[in-house]
Amino acid sequence: MKLIQDPIHGLLKIDDWMIKIIDTQEFQRLRRISQIGFANLVFPGANHTRFEHSLGVMEVARKLVERMDVDECERMEILASALLHDIAHTPFSHCGEVIVKDYLGLNHENVEVVLKRGEIKDVLSELGISLRKIKDLVSGKSCNVVKGDIDADRIDYLIRDSHYTGVAHGLFDAQRLINKTKFVDKKMMIEAGGLRSAESLLISRFLMHTTVYHHHVCRIARKMFEKAVRFCIEEGNLNPRDLFHMDDWNLMTFLRSQEGYPKEISEMLMKRRLFKRALYVEMERVNIEDEADKIEREIAEVSGVDEVWIAVDIPKQIEGEEFGAMVLLNDEVKRLDEVSSLVKALKDAERKSLKVGVYTPKEHVDKVRKVAMSYFKVS
Amino acid sequence: MKLIQDPIHGLLKIDDWMIKIIDTQEFQRLRRISQIGFANLVFPGANHTRFEHSLGVMEVARKLVERMDVDECERMEILASALLHDIAHTPFSHCGEVIVKDYLGLNHENVEVVLKRGEIKDVLSELGISLRKIKDLVSGKSCNVVKGDIDADRIDYLIRDSHYTGVAHGLFDAQRLINKTKFVDKKMMIEAGGLRSAESLLISRFLMHTTVYHHHVCRIARKMFEKAVRFCIEEGNLNPRDLFHMDDWNLMTFLRSQEGYPKEISEMLMKRRLFKRALYVEMERVNIEDEADKIEREIAEVSGVDEVWIAVDIPKQIEGEEFGAMVLLNDEVKRLDEVSSLVKALKDAERKSLKVGVYTPKEHVDKVRKVAMSYFKVS
Amino acid sequence: MKLIQDPIHGLLKIDDWMIKIIDTQEFQRLRRISQIGFANLVFPGANHTRFEHSLGVMEVARKLVERMDVDECERMEILASALLHDIAHTPFSHCGEVIVKDYLGLNHENVEVVLKRGEIKDVLSELGISLRKIKDLVSGKSCNVVKGDIDADRIDYLIRDSHYTGVAHGLFDAQRLINKTKFVDKKMMIEAGGLRSAESLLISRFLMHTTVYHHHVCRIARKMFEKAVRFCIEEGNLNPRDLFHMDDWNLMTFLRSQEGYPKEISEMLMKRRLFKRALYVEMERVNIEDEADKIEREIAEVSGVDEVWIAVDIPKQIEGEEFGAMVLLNDEVKRLDEVSSLVKALKDAERKSLKVGVYTPKEHVDKVRKVAMSYFKVS
Amino acid sequence: MKLIQDPIHGLLKIDDWMIKIIDTQEFQRLRRISQIGFANLVFPGANHTRFEHSLGVMEVARKLVERMDVDECERMEILASALLHDIAHTPFSHCGEVIVKDYLGLNHENVEVVLKRGEIKDVLSELGISLRKIKDLVSGKSCNVVKGDIDADRIDYLIRDSHYTGVAHGLFDAQRLINKTKFVDKKMMIEAGGLRSAESLLISRFLMHTTVYHHHVCRIARKMFEKAVRFCIEEGNLNPRDLFHMDDWNLMTFLRSQEGYPKEISEMLMKRRLFKRALYVEMERVNIEDEADKIEREIAEVSGVDEVWIAVDIPKQIEGEEFGAMVLLNDEVKRLDEVSSLVKALKDAERKSLKVGVYTPKEHVDKVRKVAMSYFKVS
Repeated sequence: MKLIQDPIHGLLKIDDWMIKIIDTQEFQRLRRISQIGFANLVFPGANHTRFEHSLGVMEVARKLVERMDVDECERMEILASALLHDIAHTPFSHCGEVIVKDYLGLNHENVEVVLKRGEIKDVLSELGISLRKIKDLVSGKSCNVVKGDIDADRIDYLIRDSHYTGVAHGLFDAQRLINKTKFVDKKMMIEAGGLRSAESLLISRFLMHTTVYHHHVCRIARKMFEKAVRFCIEEGNLNPRDLFHMDDWNLMTFLRSQEGYPKEISEMLMKRRLFKRALYVEMERVNIEDEADKIEREIAEVSGVDEVWIAVDIPKQIEGEEFGAMVLLNDEVKRLDEVSSLVKALKDAERKSLKVGVYTPKEHVDKVRKVAMSYFKVS
Repeated sequence: MKLIQDPIHGLLKIDDWMIKIIDTQEFQRLRRISQIGFANLVFPGANHTRFEHSLGVMEVARKLVERMDVDECERMEILASALLHDIAHTPFSHCGEVIVKDYLGLNHENVEVVLKRGEIKDVLSELGISLRKIKDLVSGKSCNVVKGDIDADRIDYLIRDSHYTGVAHGLFDAQRLINKTKFVDKKMMIEAGGLRSAESLLISRFLMHTTVYHHHVCRIARKMFEKAVRFCIEEGNLNPRDLFHMDDWNLMTFLRSQEGYPKEISEMLMKRRLFKRALYVEMERVNIEDEADKIEREIAEVSGVDEVWIAVDIPKQIEGEEFGAMVLLNDEVKRLDEVSSLVKALKDAERKSLKVGVYTPKEHVDKVRKVAMSYFKVS
Repeated sequence: MKLIQDPIHGLLKIDDWMIKIIDTQEFQRLRRISQIGFANLVFPGANHTRFEHSLGVMEVARKLVERMDVDECERMEILASALLHDIAHTPFSHCGEVIVKDYLGLNHENVEVVLKRGEIKDVLSELGISLRKIKDLVSGKSCNVVKGDIDADRIDYLIRDSHYTGVAHGLFDAQRLINKTKFVDKKMMIEAGGLRSAESLLISRFLMHTTVYHHHVCRIARKMFEKAVRFCIEEGNLNPRDLFHMDDWNLMTFLRSQEGYPKEISEMLMKRRLFKRALYVEMERVNIEDEADKIEREIAEVSGVDEVWIAVDIPKQIEGEEFGAMVLLNDEVKRLDEVSSLVKALKDAERKSLKVGVYTPKEHVDKVRKVAMSYFKVS
Repeated sequence: MKLIQDPIHGLLKIDDWMIKIIDTQEFQRLRRISQIGFANLVFPGANHTRFEHSLGVMEVARKLVERMDVDECERMEILASALLHDIAHTPFSHCGEVIVKDYLGLNHENVEVVLKRGEIKDVLSELGISLRKIKDLVSGKSCNVVKGDIDADRIDYLIRDSHYTGVAHGLFDAQRLINKTKFVDKKMMIEAGGLRSAESLLISRFLMHTTVYHHHVCRIARKMFEKAVRFCIEEGNLNPRDLFHMDDWNLMTFLRSQEGYPKEISEMLMKRRLFKRALYVEMERVNIEDEADKIEREIAEVSGVDEVWIAVDIPKQIEGEEFGAMVLLNDEVKRLDEVSSLVKALKDAERKSLKVGVYTPKEHVDKVRKVAMSYFKVS
């Protein structure tokens, strides 16, 4: 057994078989994938990576699994899944994800993209862990420890992101929450004594979303990055599948080495010269998440500003199903949003509205604003 | 200037004139008034006192006042009020308060009970601080720094109570909140950038109430204490007015020195032999807060258990007006519960229902339960 | 099993048999014995008690015992000793200890004074734990987990005192230290990887001593308290043996209820009107720890100030044997002060010198200073 | 004024003129220079950068400067120097520094290499800050706030490195230390009340050096990196002067894009396939720091292993002059190591000995060990 020092959970206990996974080049790559993309442009401490987060999720899962009735083989599968649940993240984590989604129909839960070849494939096969089992665990199909409503992933990332951003909102009572879970047929339930901690986690998530993850600077940087990467793909200079094997460092260096638009954009990101806001409009939450491209094109056409310099940002709704964590009250299983009026309220709060932003370099702001205001019928 | 080390705010800067207030015997008495009464029976670390809390409120107020346009005299009045806002707390803080309320029509905001005599009177007069000004500041009439919807008092006690109980719920981003206040005509407003921190404070307060302040063990201990003190008053052995000058130590020693009921009860408290729960019933929030005595008498009569051994606990509603903090959005002043759906939801969550508890020593539980169930029509 | 929330170690796991010990009135009394006496006169947050410290020591011991090869019975003895190691502390912890030492030849390690009667005696006998075993464990005779050079007691109190005073010096890497211990024949050894943490603990102890425990205000308050208690004993109003059953609250209330000197002194303590320093002189460490009384008498005689108003404070040396923790380097057992030049240096630093203080009420300072200067040959 | 959230110091107050400096591309580059090089290979949380550290040093300096008697112009110079003191760090901070030292005779204090051209040059000239002034402040010549024995740089990095590594050793009482400084003729002195905090800082530094900065894994990774970079320079593929403008990301991507040795080594670093230890020998501290190359050559020759695969690591002594911080005791100025026996001891502890490591890929370990043992006369 090995000990690794983690600022969040203290000394992590790493079994020998885990070291084999950690030592693969696929896992080591996570050292260079930032956990929350460009958030460090706003919160300079937020340089943490998917590597340490993955270790942390394993640690939380380890504590949860102690409370389950599992054999050594199932334990290994769950903990391996905890370690590997983010192995298919692309550079800058969620920032690149929309791209592989569009081009390949894949997201970071498609761990098979990475796991079915290379060193990691050999290690999993040596350990006798089947890819199918891992897929089911990572997607929350067979058990909700790694992915569920309240899961090891969320418990780790909220506290970790708080520690590195310095934003207190992510703090909640993880130890109590973990100690108040009960497993019924391998399904995780929250006992009455953990209700407040569960509420607290969901509120943390809500506040961290609005304060950090959806901070407008993070969103515009992400949009700029995305447009540069798409440009390279469209020009045939980058295979979207390679994103699963690149890291922040070499993708960004690649962009800087290109000619024209990608170079310009990536240099702007490196120097923190971001697009400025031309319009910020609150609207009813309607189904326009996927129309950003179309809107960019239309504004470009009317304003005369080249489409590559216009970024329309439409935040996705935070997934509603997360409120369905199961609670065990007087031997009855209930949904968290049934028993907690606070969680119910939170759910409603999230649904209400969205804010669309239109961004462009400083020099085009006036032109773009005028067209965007007309497009969104803002006066 | 003197520096005092505080575990919450670090080094507190104490002006020379403040030392004069702190050095009075009235202020020093706060060293022996526990901040959250009998909460240490559940949270063994919660031994903190009104003394350190008062220093902490002054520190938060000092930071807020830096943001106001006040002259040195007003500054002194506000900071003196921050220091003195709890000077009229009775032993075990809120635990004894209901008694002075009933007998004397006073509560801890009636600071004049303590301030208009003794050393503190002389010091205030020497400093040229008028009692009237302090009263208005302590009650939030003239300015909402010390007492308001979101005020120095709450900012301090939530974080402090978290630190000492170990319950994470009280943590929120105080520094950001303070830095995002703006004073308009000496009224404190929250700017847009502080909205999340303000929400976070209110949620903290809600979670701390349900987890710590209203913990059923704290409530039953408080009820036992209250009954013992009332008994002494009724028997003519204690003048309720003396409670403003006694502390936890000598009041409890006094109770232990009495004959009969108060001695028995106080020894039970000292040994943590608490009444057991005979009934716990959730009901619509109706106006029965003041009927505990009457209910106790009725249950006593029917069950044959002496009234002194029956404790009916009806929690008060957390005051609703706290959600009215003013927010400054695009130069418009709004109420927090207007702009935050989360706070609105919280408000509703708090109103919904209350839980009445009936407690009695172990040996009477069966008898009392039967009668109480019938009284509250529970089957 | 029960969970108790502790601000230092998080959720403490309390076995059912432990609850029986904790629920005795002897153990509950520790709730009213402050951990570091009058230190809260300087550090207002330092209101923590021997109760929570005892739980904390048990928690650290629990983690250490997991690393030992012991049967369930030995485990129980060690953990019971951890819980009970401070059961014979007198009010204000070390402040009253010198008195029971002088009058009865006892100190807080004489746990038998408390354990061989009352509820606790019955519980221990019910649990089958022998008093002899506890004595040997508490005094470090049979095993160095509870008391040793680096032990559960110290690991808990340094971090705990830091948390409550706000002084950072007590922080060190307890988790690593615990994880780098190895037990050889039930003797605790530090492995190479824990060397830095062990050094760090000893330095913490040194810095906490000079900053907190030996702070001159704490020392003078302690001296005043001690003189008042001795006075009551000498006058026949207090049996020194009762100190093992009293707590801070009722002893202080007792002193305040006395006539004359004890009343005056205790009121001074309650109002923080402390003796002022008449002289502070650094001298070679010679064996004068026990001569304070004699010196007080002599200064009184010459100065004409009544002896009760003169306090001579001679700090005891921090015990040197603490540096002898055993370290396991390349399979060899060495003493910590052999392998660590830092620890060796620390040892020397502590030995060098002591500072004697002479204190008296403000109005006598001049008279007392003159005589004291001449006594100590200071010009 | 702008607020930036920092996990160490909370909200940083950034004056408008500072934003101009921060917004230059030279300063933004620090976002991609890791603070402690390859330490994240051991402490996965240690991904923090020179960017946030530089902001932190400015914050500490800002608090110190408040205690000085300076005009607005001097204040600006000091704070600009705090911001810019690490502007000439090369990728992976100290890891590349020995190279620019060898080839160009420069180190990271030669800030002029970066400051006398580009955007930063224009900003400094616009702000009227002379390069000479900055050089003198960064090197500690004109004032010891930014660089001295106890300075803003050290105060920030120790706490920051603790936060991100999770190693408690770097924690000390920074607030007290800062509040107990006094400036005499712009020279920073520590007052008596800050003595313990100053000791504590030096001990922190010592423990962090042995635990983190000199951790053998960090050292071997550094050595591997250094050898790869030197190889590129020797082959004419890299101009050492470019290191002042590259960052971790593009330098590492550059190395991976090379042929042969640099590619191999950098891939090993990325996959954490490090050289293994062939020998670790403790020896008297003699002056062999600069002989690593020579020793490598000699071992290569005798063992037949190519020199590029042999790494001899000889740690530099921690600079002794750091113990000379000035202390103000009873109006006399003394050196810290004169008045503190602990610091004196620390100084001696550091001097005593050094440990030389010889590393090579696994497959050569046996061959290299044999030769190295003979070279260092170890049996």
